[in-house]
Amino acid sequence: MKNEFPSKRDLYEAMEYVQQYAHRTPILSSGMINEKLGCTVYFKSEHLQKTGSFKARGALNALLSLKADIEPKGVVTHSSGNHGQALAWASNLLGIAAVVVVPRNAPTVKVEAIQAYGAEVFFCEPNLESREEHCFRIHKERGYVIIPPFDDYRIIAGQSTMMQEILGQIDDLDCAIVPVGGGGLLSGSLLAAERSSKELLVFGAEPSASGDAMESFKTGVRVRTGGAETIADGLRTALGERNFEIISKKADGILPASEDNIKLALKWIYMYLKQAVEPSAAVSLAAILENAEVFRGKKVVSILCGGNLDLKALPF
Amino acid sequence: MKNEFPSKRDLYEAMEYVQQYAHRTPILSSGMINEKLGCTVYFKSEHLQKTGSFKARGALNALLSLKADIEPKGVVTHSSGNHGQALAWASNLLGIAAVVVVPRNAPTVKVEAIQAYGAEVFFCEPNLESREEHCFRIHKERGYVIIPPFDDYRIIAGQSTMMQEILGQIDDLDCAIVPVGGGGLLSGSLLAAERSSKELLVFGAEPSASGDAMESFKTGVRVRTGGAETIADGLRTALGERNFEIISKKADGILPASEDNIKLALKWIYMYLKQAVEPSAAVSLAAILENAEVFRGKKVVSILCGGNLDLKALPF
Repeated sequence: MKNEFPSKRDLYEAMEYVQQYAHRTPILSSGMINEKLGCTVYFKSEHLQKTGSFKARGALNALLSLKADIEPKGVVTHSSGNHGQALAWASNLLGIAAVVVVPRNAPTVKVEAIQAYGAEVFFCEPNLESREEHCFRIHKERGYVIIPPFDDYRIIAGQSTMMQEILGQIDDLDCAIVPVGGGGLLSGSLLAAERSSKELLVFGAEPSASGDAMESFKTGVRVRTGGAETIADGLRTALGERNFEIISKKADGILPASEDNIKLALKWIYMYLKQAVEPSAAVSLAAILENAEVFRGKKVVSILCGGNLDLKALPF
Repeated sequence: MKNEFPSKRDLYEAMEYVQQYAHRTPILSSGMINEKLGCTVYFKSEHLQKTGSFKARGALNALLSLKADIEPKGVVTHSSGNHGQALAWASNLLGIAAVVVVPRNAPTVKVEAIQAYGAEVFFCEPNLESREEHCFRIHKERGYVIIPPFDDYRIIAGQSTMMQEILGQIDDLDCAIVPVGGGGLLSGSLLAAERSSKELLVFGAEPSASGDAMESFKTGVRVRTGGAETIADGLRTALGERNFEIISKKADGILPASEDNIKLALKWIYMYLKQAVEPSAAVSLAAILENAEVFRGKKVVSILCGGNLDLKALPF
């Protein structure tokens, strides 16, 4: 892929690739939540996506577009979370060898999920240098292609397929509130929204306790450290470079969500939608809650981005 | 309605009534659960039904068939659980006054839900005599019609609509495993299955710690006390008289589920289906788990009967 933003054609191709194997996830809603907020909230259920998160989309697109160019010996990534599972699953599906580098202190349940999808797990020290070093060593030694979790145009184009679907599922949508960690899903959603003919405001939603995207968006300079102090563990990462480029040019804003509102939104999702999601999936609703006056009377889509939760860590 | 089992026509009429206002709830599945069990399990999502449980069906049918005969002054029931919410909701929808008698020690969240649907709440002592006494007094004083939670043919015909739907949603189903407390859903499902042209085995599933239905089914004599020692609080009730009549004649068996298996099944439903259900909704899967050899290679439907859970009481 060229070293410029994914084109309309790239997004279309990603859709062709992704819909072969991924679910067209349903839209859910709750009269009770709408009443409480004074707006109409549509929930896109990416926690029901293959591997339990939207990350399956990016992994599929990265591997299928890679395979269209070369026959890779294998792929490698580092991840303690949903990207690792997604890459393991997609590689297995497409018959590509995969290694996932995982920090030594990652939860056993996540390591087992990656192994269950058939990927090889390499343990490293729990810091970014060790992760990247191991990843690069496997790339050099085995010739495996590195597939980054978000800072990659094939991944971004893959994640764009979620918003492409939403635009076909909901008419006259006013706003989309997309959770932002590394920024893969938000940057993809921005490209999809821009290239549709629909009028739609697209906001990021971020835990205040990991406010690097908001800070970067405001100042125009990318902050390179996230924050570990949020319950929304999937969103602790700082923005990627390519993601920041797209987000700083195209987003309509980044909305903060306090930890209290994330917990309250999570409770509503369990109580009213009856969906078991991970805390990161509540951040988008929490941002609507926290900025309710902005959305009053509007049709808003909120993203249930993942459901791979540690049941023991539920804050109820 | 006549004092005999609901007829094919009653079931058909119930379907006409119920589908006007209730959801046709979706069927869910999980490759991981199928792999673990060696059979294909379809989950009927009644936790996504109006009011968060299948009880909305019975309440709707009871009120709509009542209204077809008379213009009731109001209706009254006693319930600390899903039937109370269902009757409150259906009454409000149809413009009928409703009183729900609730034990003094019922969780605030359940009382508030009943009130939110617009019903009047009367508190009583937490025992069956006090509940029935209050109920009867309101019936006498106000002329309100008593709508029992399960021991009633209109309720049974209403609950039958769930199985009527399932038979149109899943082809070549081998078995249905239906949770049993008072027996409204199981007796309705048995009538629906019998009156379809499909071959289908229908089993009840019951917590071993509240094994009255199994005992009654084996001995042919109705045991009138349930058991409070199960986490599946929706299934602590003993079988109703009319329900027992139908179940003892038509069920293919009652399967037990241990508390450990109920908790494991509940965990699977959260982890693999990503659905937030109440513990009673895990009993049907727990019974499949506990009797896995019976179902190997079969197509089985398991019922997620409700999702009105006390988040604080989750056993994770």
